Amino acid sequence: MEREDRPILGDYIMVRAEENGVTIIGLTRGKDTRFHHTEKLDRGEVMLAQFTEHTSAIKIRGKAKIFTKHGTLESGE
Amino acid sequence: MEREDRPILGDYIMVRAEENGVTIIGLTRGKDTRFHHTEKLDRGEVMLAQFTEHTSAIKIRGKAKIFTKHGTLESGE
Amino acid sequence: MEREDRPILGDYIMVRAEENGVTIIGLTRGKDTRFHHTEKLDRGEVMLAQFTEHTSAIKIRGKAKIFTKHGTLESGE
Amino acid sequence: MEREDRPILGDYIMVRAEENGVTIIGLTRGKDTRFHHTEKLDRGEVMLAQFTEHTSAIKIRGKAKIFTKHGTLESGE
Amino acid sequence: MEREDRPILGDYIMVRAEENGVTIIGLTRGKDTRFHHTEKLDRGEVMLAQFTEHTSAIKIRGKAKIFTKHGTLESGE
Amino acid sequence: MEREDRPILGDYIMVRAEENGVTIIGLTRGKDTRFHHTEKLDRGEVMLAQFTEHTSAIKIRGKAKIFTKHGTLESGE
Amino acid sequence: MEREDRPILGDYIMVRAEENGVTIIGLTRGKDTRFHHTEKLDRGEVMLAQFTEHTSAIKIRGKAKIFTKHGTLESGE
Amino acid sequence: MEREDRPILGDYIMVRAEENGVTIIGLTRGKDTRFHHTEKLDRGEVMLAQFTEHTSAIKIRGKAKIFTKHGTLESGE
Amino acid sequence: MEREDRPILGDYIMVRAEENGVTIIGLTRGKDTRFHHTEKLDRGEVMLAQFTEHTSAIKIRGKAKIFTKHGTLESGE
Amino acid sequence: MEREDRPILGDYIMVRAEENGVTIIGLTRGKDTRFHHTEKLDRGEVMLAQFTEHTSAIKIRGKAKIFTKHGTLESGE
Amino acid sequence: MEREDRPILGDYIMVRAEENGVTIIGLTRGKDTRFHHTEKLDRGEVMLAQFTEHTSAIKIRGKAKIFTKHGTLESGE
Amino acid sequence: MEREDRPILGDYIMVRAEENGVTIIGLTRGKDTRFHHTEKLDRGEVMLAQFTEHTSAIKIRGKAKIFTKHGTLESGE
Repeated sequence: MEREDRPILGDYIMVRAEENGVTIIGLTRGKDTRFHHTEKLDRGEVMLAQFTEHTSAIKIRGKAKIFTKHGTLESGE
Repeated sequence: MEREDRPILGDYIMVRAEENGVTIIGLTRGKDTRFHHTEKLDRGEVMLAQFTEHTSAIKIRGKAKIFTKHGTLESGE
Repeated sequence: MEREDRPILGDYIMVRAEENGVTIIGLTRGKDTRFHHTEKLDRGEVMLAQFTEHTSAIKIRGKAKIFTKHGTLESGE
Repeated sequence: MEREDRPILGDYIMVRAEENGVTIIGLTRGKDTRFHHTEKLDRGEVMLAQFTEHTSAIKIRGKAKIFTKHGTLESGE
Repeated sequence: MEREDRPILGDYIMVRAEENGVTIIGLTRGKDTRFHHTEKLDRGEVMLAQFTEHTSAIKIRGKAKIFTKHGTLESGE
Repeated sequence: MEREDRPILGDYIMVRAEENGVTIIGLTRGKDTRFHHTEKLDRGEVMLAQFTEHTSAIKIRGKAKIFTKHGTLESGE
Repeated sequence: MEREDRPILGDYIMVRAEENGVTIIGLTRGKDTRFHHTEKLDRGEVMLAQFTEHTSAIKIRGKAKIFTKHGTLESGE
Repeated sequence: MEREDRPILGDYIMVRAEENGVTIIGLTRGKDTRFHHTEKLDRGEVMLAQFTEHTSAIKIRGKAKIFTKHGTLESGE
Repeated sequence: MEREDRPILGDYIMVRAEENGVTIIGLTRGKDTRFHHTEKLDRGEVMLAQFTEHTSAIKIRGKAKIFTKHGTLESGE
Repeated sequence: MEREDRPILGDYIMVRAEENGVTIIGLTRGKDTRFHHTEKLDRGEVMLAQFTEHTSAIKIRGKAKIFTKHGTLESGE
Repeated sequence: MEREDRPILGDYIMVRAEENGVTIIGLTRGKDTRFHHTEKLDRGEVMLAQFTEHTSAIKIRGKAKIFTKHGTLESGE
Repeated sequence: MEREDRPILGDYIMVRAEENGVTIIGLTRGKDTRFHHTEKLDRGEVMLAQFTEHTSAIKIRGKAKIFTKHGTLESGE
């Protein structure tokens, strides 16, 4: 497991669900970009997620507040 | 245990429970993203938790105040 | 998997679709620059995507709000 | 003891007990997350504690003032 | 693929086409400086492009808004 | 003694005793967290102490002023 | 191609032609300093160019706006 | 003497004695924390002292002004 | 060509000629300091030049505006 | 002389004597802390001195103005 | 020529002659400190010069304006 | 000459003589601290001097203006 310590330094985002059923989807890093994990949040739940060796993109569906280094925005209509 | 010293540098968040039964869930780093640890907080209790070799995502349920590098927010309805 | 930990440090952008059918296209890094992945977003959906070993350019079609280190802008007419 | 010098660079927090019996609990780093140390503080006592090779999370019970890089907050009801 | 992880850190620019047919041309790094890729944007489309191992210069034709670390400007007459 | 030069870079705190008998206690780094050194300060005395290979936590009892990177506070009732 | 990834980090300038026929000339790095590439810009065209292994100086002729880390200026009479 | 050059980078403090007989005591780094050096200052004398391989704590007795990265304070009653 | 990538990081200056015949002279790095390259600029022309492995000093004759990290000045009488 | 280049990066202080006979004393780094050099300054003379492999503490006697990274102070009564 | 690329990062100063015959003298780095190069500037001429492997001190005679990281000053009476 | 490139990064000071006969003295780095070079400046002359492998202290006699990272002061009575 040598040198597997560095991944902990990846940036992370924070998502707060503003309705039930908000979906946070991790997309795979590498040649194929496909869904590898889906997390459901109910209203008021908060998720913090890092970019990792396996996740280079994140998709968010549903009404939520998203906190990132580029600022804060609301998803959902 | 060589080179296991670097993990201590991972960022951490701080959570203060605003009601009994707030749940802080660590999700696994790696190909599978699943719950690996659940910590319960009662009202007024505070938890500080780092991203680690084993935790690349954190989920918070219940009414709590969350402090991160992206700012502060309240979970729960 | 030695040294594959560094890619996690690539910068990322955030896109919020302002209409259905917004397209985010990853273009290949390397000698050939061609489309390698297309992601569709419906209105209100948010996508966060890193530059990776396989993606050195990103194209966005449709009405969306884009957040980057150079600022924020709206795509679409 | 080669390379064991780097752990000293871990971030630390500061806790000031505002009542007797404040508890500061160190949780283990690694696959298992369990209590490995409990420190009791009486009113007015101050504890400074680093994240270490053995501690990746800290839990605080009782009325206390907590100083961290994310700001200052009070635990306890 | 060892050490091919660093290219992801190259700076990137962002271009928003203000008319149909805006052209973004990548010029080759190395002894010869020639066109190696041409991307067409229609009005409202946005392109984000990094400097890479193969691209050390970028040329933009047509009316567009360009975002860089040196500021923002409009191309086209 | 090769590479033992880095420990000198550990952060330090400063404590000024505001009464006689202020106690500064060093707690051990590592699997066991126990007292390994106790220093007594009389009123007006000042102590500066680094986090070291052997000290990952510090406990302060009695009325004192404590200066750290997270700010300044008073211990004692 | 090992270690050829670092060149991507060279600084770049941005030039916007304010008339037809603006010339951007790359001069060779090394013992001889001679022209190795000439790029013509028409009015409104924009060029972004890095300093590279082959270019350590850049000459600009004609009316143009130049953006650099030292500020912005206009070339031409 | 290889690599003994880094110790010079340790932080230092500055002490100005405000009365005769101010004492600056260096405490040993390592498993034992004991006095290893005592320096006496008369009123108006100034001492600058680094944290070193042999000194991880410093104790100051008597009326003095102390300058550190955490600010300035007066010792003594 | 291993490790020849770093020279691209040398600082650069920018010169805008305010009259015809402005001269920018590169002086050699190393034991001998002599002219190794002379570039002539006509009024309005702009030159950007890095310090390189071969140039450790630059001399400018004639009326010009010079932009550097230490500020901007005008050469010539 | 390999790697003896780094010592030049040690911090330095500046002392201006405000009377004749100001003394700047270098104390030895290492297990023993003893005087290894004494420099006398007359009024108006200025001394700049680095922390070095041989000097980890500096003592100043007599009326002088001392400039350091922690600020400026006057020694002497 | 391996590793000879770093010298390009030395700091540089800028000198503008305010009269004819301003002299910029490079003094040798190393055990002996002697003149190794003298450059004459006439009024209005500008010289930019780095500290190099061969130059660790620079002397300026005559009326000139000098720009450095410590600020700007005028030499000459 | 391997690795002799780093010395160029040592900090430097700037001295402007305000009278004839200002003396800038380099003192040796190492176990012995003795004069190894003396430079005389006449009124209006300016000297820039780095800390080097051979110089860890600098003494200035006579009326002069001294520019350093800790600020500016005047030597001499």
